[in-house]
Amino acid sequence: MLKRVDVRYLKEPEGVGLKDPVFIEGLPGIGHVGKLVADHLVKELDTVKVVEIYSHHFPPQVMVNEDGTIRLPKNEVYAYKSDGNSPDLLILVGDFQSMDGIGHYELVNAYIEIAKKFGAKRIFTLGGYGVGRMVEEPYVIGAANTPELVEELKKFGVKFEKGEPSGGIIGASGLLLGVSQLEGIEAACLMGVTSGYMVDPKSAKAVLDVLMKILNLKVSVEDLEERAKEMEKFIEQIREMQEQVVQQYRSDEDLRYFR
Amino acid sequence: MLKRVDVRYLKEPEGVGLKDPVFIEGLPGIGHVGKLVADHLVKELDTVKVVEIYSHHFPPQVMVNEDGTIRLPKNEVYAYKSDGNSPDLLILVGDFQSMDGIGHYELVNAYIEIAKKFGAKRIFTLGGYGVGRMVEEPYVIGAANTPELVEELKKFGVKFEKGEPSGGIIGASGLLLGVSQLEGIEAACLMGVTSGYMVDPKSAKAVLDVLMKILNLKVSVEDLEERAKEMEKFIEQIREMQEQVVQQYRSDEDLRYFR
Amino acid sequence: MLKRVDVRYLKEPEGVGLKDPVFIEGLPGIGHVGKLVADHLVKELDTVKVVEIYSHHFPPQVMVNEDGTIRLPKNEVYAYKSDGNSPDLLILVGDFQSMDGIGHYELVNAYIEIAKKFGAKRIFTLGGYGVGRMVEEPYVIGAANTPELVEELKKFGVKFEKGEPSGGIIGASGLLLGVSQLEGIEAACLMGVTSGYMVDPKSAKAVLDVLMKILNLKVSVEDLEERAKEMEKFIEQIREMQEQVVQQYRSDEDLRYFR
Amino acid sequence: MLKRVDVRYLKEPEGVGLKDPVFIEGLPGIGHVGKLVADHLVKELDTVKVVEIYSHHFPPQVMVNEDGTIRLPKNEVYAYKSDGNSPDLLILVGDFQSMDGIGHYELVNAYIEIAKKFGAKRIFTLGGYGVGRMVEEPYVIGAANTPELVEELKKFGVKFEKGEPSGGIIGASGLLLGVSQLEGIEAACLMGVTSGYMVDPKSAKAVLDVLMKILNLKVSVEDLEERAKEMEKFIEQIREMQEQVVQQYRSDEDLRYFR
Repeated sequence: MLKRVDVRYLKEPEGVGLKDPVFIEGLPGIGHVGKLVADHLVKELDTVKVVEIYSHHFPPQVMVNEDGTIRLPKNEVYAYKSDGNSPDLLILVGDFQSMDGIGHYELVNAYIEIAKKFGAKRIFTLGGYGVGRMVEEPYVIGAANTPELVEELKKFGVKFEKGEPSGGIIGASGLLLGVSQLEGIEAACLMGVTSGYMVDPKSAKAVLDVLMKILNLKVSVEDLEERAKEMEKFIEQIREMQEQVVQQYRSDEDLRYFR
Repeated sequence: MLKRVDVRYLKEPEGVGLKDPVFIEGLPGIGHVGKLVADHLVKELDTVKVVEIYSHHFPPQVMVNEDGTIRLPKNEVYAYKSDGNSPDLLILVGDFQSMDGIGHYELVNAYIEIAKKFGAKRIFTLGGYGVGRMVEEPYVIGAANTPELVEELKKFGVKFEKGEPSGGIIGASGLLLGVSQLEGIEAACLMGVTSGYMVDPKSAKAVLDVLMKILNLKVSVEDLEERAKEMEKFIEQIREMQEQVVQQYRSDEDLRYFR
Repeated sequence: MLKRVDVRYLKEPEGVGLKDPVFIEGLPGIGHVGKLVADHLVKELDTVKVVEIYSHHFPPQVMVNEDGTIRLPKNEVYAYKSDGNSPDLLILVGDFQSMDGIGHYELVNAYIEIAKKFGAKRIFTLGGYGVGRMVEEPYVIGAANTPELVEELKKFGVKFEKGEPSGGIIGASGLLLGVSQLEGIEAACLMGVTSGYMVDPKSAKAVLDVLMKILNLKVSVEDLEERAKEMEKFIEQIREMQEQVVQQYRSDEDLRYFR
Repeated sequence: MLKRVDVRYLKEPEGVGLKDPVFIEGLPGIGHVGKLVADHLVKELDTVKVVEIYSHHFPPQVMVNEDGTIRLPKNEVYAYKSDGNSPDLLILVGDFQSMDGIGHYELVNAYIEIAKKFGAKRIFTLGGYGVGRMVEEPYVIGAANTPELVEELKKFGVKFEKGEPSGGIIGASGLLLGVSQLEGIEAACLMGVTSGYMVDPKSAKAVLDVLMKILNLKVSVEDLEERAKEMEKFIEQIREMQEQVVQQYRSDEDLRYFR
């Protein structure tokens, strides 16, 4: 029995014992910049999975692993207990964002509830800012839910360009800032400028560099290129998904007709 | 935690102490005529914000302000305590209407509950009536939920053209009239004739003039042109939003595929 | 406050005192044949309105009457107390069917609950069967939820063509038969063959003739042509609605973008 | 009154007295391979219908039978009590999958609840794997929700190609594996390679052969070709449905406009 938004705690928040963790979100998005950085952190740091999130708002299917086993679309939260120089972290990563508008709100409600259960006092959402052209020297633009945080981030080289992105910030990276604003949780979005046409490890590196400065955290950036390649594979799968769906509709006409 | 339709009272209705206020709605719509007039009233009059409305039916994103801070899509209700010559006012303004059909009904239910909590006895919804061609001398056509109110409005120069708009009145401006009809609350819609192609301050002025006569209210109309220019900027942002969304889908294929 | 499916009884079923009434449905559909017949019956017979149905599944707007007043989209049930030669009748007429697939099921649940509250033992749904070409001599084809009723209807000249309509029966006219089948209520659909391109009074007359035979009922068919003309006007309004909506989207871009 | 997902037990699970039954799903899908095999099993084996499933997520209409009676879209579960050489079976067959993404999840929740009520310990979902070209010698590829089951199936000649289908498994056949994984129920999907362009009895035979080996079950495969022909008829009906719907929209403009 899978609930509409199904949050499963693998560990009791108290048991994990994080101290004022910083909540970091990196789900699929423009250039998969945020996902690339967050996946990288989960792998490079000594993290432990603490929450799994399933939802009716994810695509109604399973993915197939190399070994023939399957997995449900899900998002995950990993906990990182710091050595003391940097803050403890909660890192939200995963396969998908919501398929529909309402689902974005329902999922973000769940993410914030998780952040609060672990006592998170600050949220950073990671994404890409698509400019529609190749970018030689990617940099990071920001947006935050308090003026103080805007000022603080400027010190770390985050750019704030008058009202950019003028189109706003779409999906979890944006809504997390908005809803946490109402909850009195400080939150900012770090966006790596990117073409938006492909997985962009250079843009991800720019975001990671800034994030490490902000968190006073050190992780190797070497494997980013590597991960980007793997991710291209994943995205290729997504493309296949769509062909599959199209194909399914072709034979399964009924599925199409009330769309 | 944001509810599907999340009404937040910043002040207790009793505390505000409005006497039989008139509820005025001016949300985005054709020519943004209604929004232009309502925003203008909120700024010109000595108003205080009393309610904020958030909803899963608004776009799943945040907008970015000039200073780099963000804001969730929301609608707002402002209260105006009159000097006695005109009635007290409740003015509903905001960023969006519902993204989906069902949401229109759910939001209008909320708007009417707010109007009742403040003791509103009458509702005016403001909008544009798009005629698809430039209009030299804009005038105001009306529709009401009682024959008596139709007659009353005629006295103020509001035109009632046999069954116009023949396409009905779509969104909050229409549903507010319909649902309040069932609740026994008098309501009318004032529509400024406009091309429908652009933000139309001339049409807005026509609506504002009529509304001021009806309410025996005086506000300067000077800044309308100015506000129209600002609003064009906002609409430009909305256009960027869509490009953003399209772009996001390009890189975030998964988000597209079950549409 | 309007519920998702909002059924409002204007009279207590017991108070109306119908005896084993036959429930007749004639909502908009192919060639508006069913609506034409049902509206005609309501006007020709001495009927009284007993129920109004509003729903979030109807279009989010109001229609404007000739006199400048507005009305919410709604469906209605009228009661007819027979003189004894024919059965008592409950007639469901209205403006719209559901805008979405799920809404069709929710509304049909409501219709059947109403039928049961009034003690209806039998349901006839009326519609058109579009053949995509002009039809000189329209006739009536049927479908029923019991074999006995199929046989009975054949006696009245209703045609049953092997598995026709092969595309099934869509919307309320079909679902009413299906759901009532599970409730143990006899139900049949009478479909006038029609081109499907226009309001078809000739096809409606064919359906009405058969229905009158079945119910041993007599009503003048003279005004059918007249009503058809009026209905064309209504449909013209619907077309205007769509232009309105398109226009609204043009100026109200935001409304479009998450579709 | 039909619930959103309406599961109706025709027999009490205890009463049926199946022992650790294997649950088999064969709903419409690519090449209708799964449906073909499951329907075949229901007809060839001495089965009894134990559950009917109706849902608002199915198309809002009824189908018309040869004799003029109608039937609601529904899925069904049949029970097969084995002679002892093979396991007892529960076979899920039916008309449709969900029309919308969320419905897939809600229906799969219901299917798994049924499987558990009957004490099913293992699930096999059947489908087609569309390769977009004619296939001379169809074979069966698999996916499972445990590595052990992958290994077990290899012994029966089921192919596991590195991460195939790379597009994942869409709809009930996939979600059943994913959700049962969380419930600790072993489940695998058997996919017959097929063009995806037509009902494919040869692919179905390949799946049936493997399934019979796995279950140590014997059923004649003779009538498969025959059933495929019948199924083509059904699919033709589905096509007609769509034309009907299109036609309905043409005359019933209102139904179209908020899509």
